Amino acid sequence: MQSENLLKQINFIKEIDKIKYIQRKTKLFNSDRPENDAEHSWHLAMMAIVLAEHSDTPIDILKVIKMVLIHDIVEIDAGDIFIYDTSKNHTNTENELRAAKRIFGLLPAEQGDELIEIWQEFEAGITNEAKFARAMDRLEPLLQNTSNNGGTWKEFDVDYKKVYEKKKIIKDSSVALWNYSENLINESVDRGILKKVD
Amino acid sequence: MQSENLLKQINFIKEIDKIKYIQRKTKLFNSDRPENDAEHSWHLAMMAIVLAEHSDTPIDILKVIKMVLIHDIVEIDAGDIFIYDTSKNHTNTENELRAAKRIFGLLPAEQGDELIEIWQEFEAGITNEAKFARAMDRLEPLLQNTSNNGGTWKEFDVDYKKVYEKKKIIKDSSVALWNYSENLINESVDRGILKKVD
Repeated sequence: MQSENLLKQINFIKEIDKIKYIQRKTKLFNSDRPENDAEHSWHLAMMAIVLAEHSDTPIDILKVIKMVLIHDIVEIDAGDIFIYDTSKNHTNTENELRAAKRIFGLLPAEQGDELIEIWQEFEAGITNEAKFARAMDRLEPLLQNTSNNGGTWKEFDVDYKKVYEKKKIIKDSSVALWNYSENLINESVDRGILKKVD
Repeated sequence: MQSENLLKQINFIKEIDKIKYIQRKTKLFNSDRPENDAEHSWHLAMMAIVLAEHSDTPIDILKVIKMVLIHDIVEIDAGDIFIYDTSKNHTNTENELRAAKRIFGLLPAEQGDELIEIWQEFEAGITNEAKFARAMDRLEPLLQNTSNNGGTWKEFDVDYKKVYEKKKIIKDSSVALWNYSENLINESVDRGILKKVD
């Protein structure tokens, strides 16, 4: 039984290598090179570890780390959707659920089910852990764009209002991180790297 | 105090972006593209999560995950050293310790000290967690090279004996993972992708 589990786990480990090829719109810090999903997921996990104290509610940090490490694995089948692409649905689409079932389904059943549940919890965004994980997912590109003279905001003509709208969920998890983020957004307007239309 | 912590944490988060530029010798699965340290660290964390049951001793999986996520951060200053490069010392060098102190030292003191300790624990390789984390670090390139027709073994003329010597520490953590690995190594000789000199 154990060795059957092991073969399934190895298959999964090989399959998820593919997220290293999935390019995001956002670029590395101080760079023009797009970030890929594996790098992004690693960075969110590191952010969760060092920023955990700023969560306004108690969180199970192990679960948060698992969430951010796996949150983009469905993109192997479903592809990356740019957060400001209004033509596409960013919520838990059928495509993504099918992808989750196929990819996590490579694992032994119990283990696969656990990761599907954690991914669904992240997508639902209701629990403290999901809120904190999603705050990390919103904060990283904010740090990147402000390090890149506007980055994807300039490239895709995204304005203050849209950015503010997407980022404000950080507040649901951490007032401290939101205050920091709100300042960054406002500073970006002052620096001329984020357009604000009255 | 909290906001002072936060600024230090954000500095650290920006600094560690640099590991995305550090290329390893090993290539992605079924690919010629070298893996970078962020991708590698993400993959080890995923492996630790799905393979934890194969550890022969109880392990604190959160600590293992932290270990593998941070284990290569020192390479931002110290650089990547190829495991089969015999001209260089792979143990905890002065350079790496200096790098750990500088980079983790960007964090609030208590937090930085914790990560330096975890990194040192990984490097020492004595605790159950460190042994399992190191097993992940040995297993990933084995999977990559066998998926890449020999990969770095062929490229750098590494033979069976050297590979066996480096990989056998997997046994210190997991007999099941070692049995699997030993089979893979022997199969590689049979497939002609790993040279065995009698």
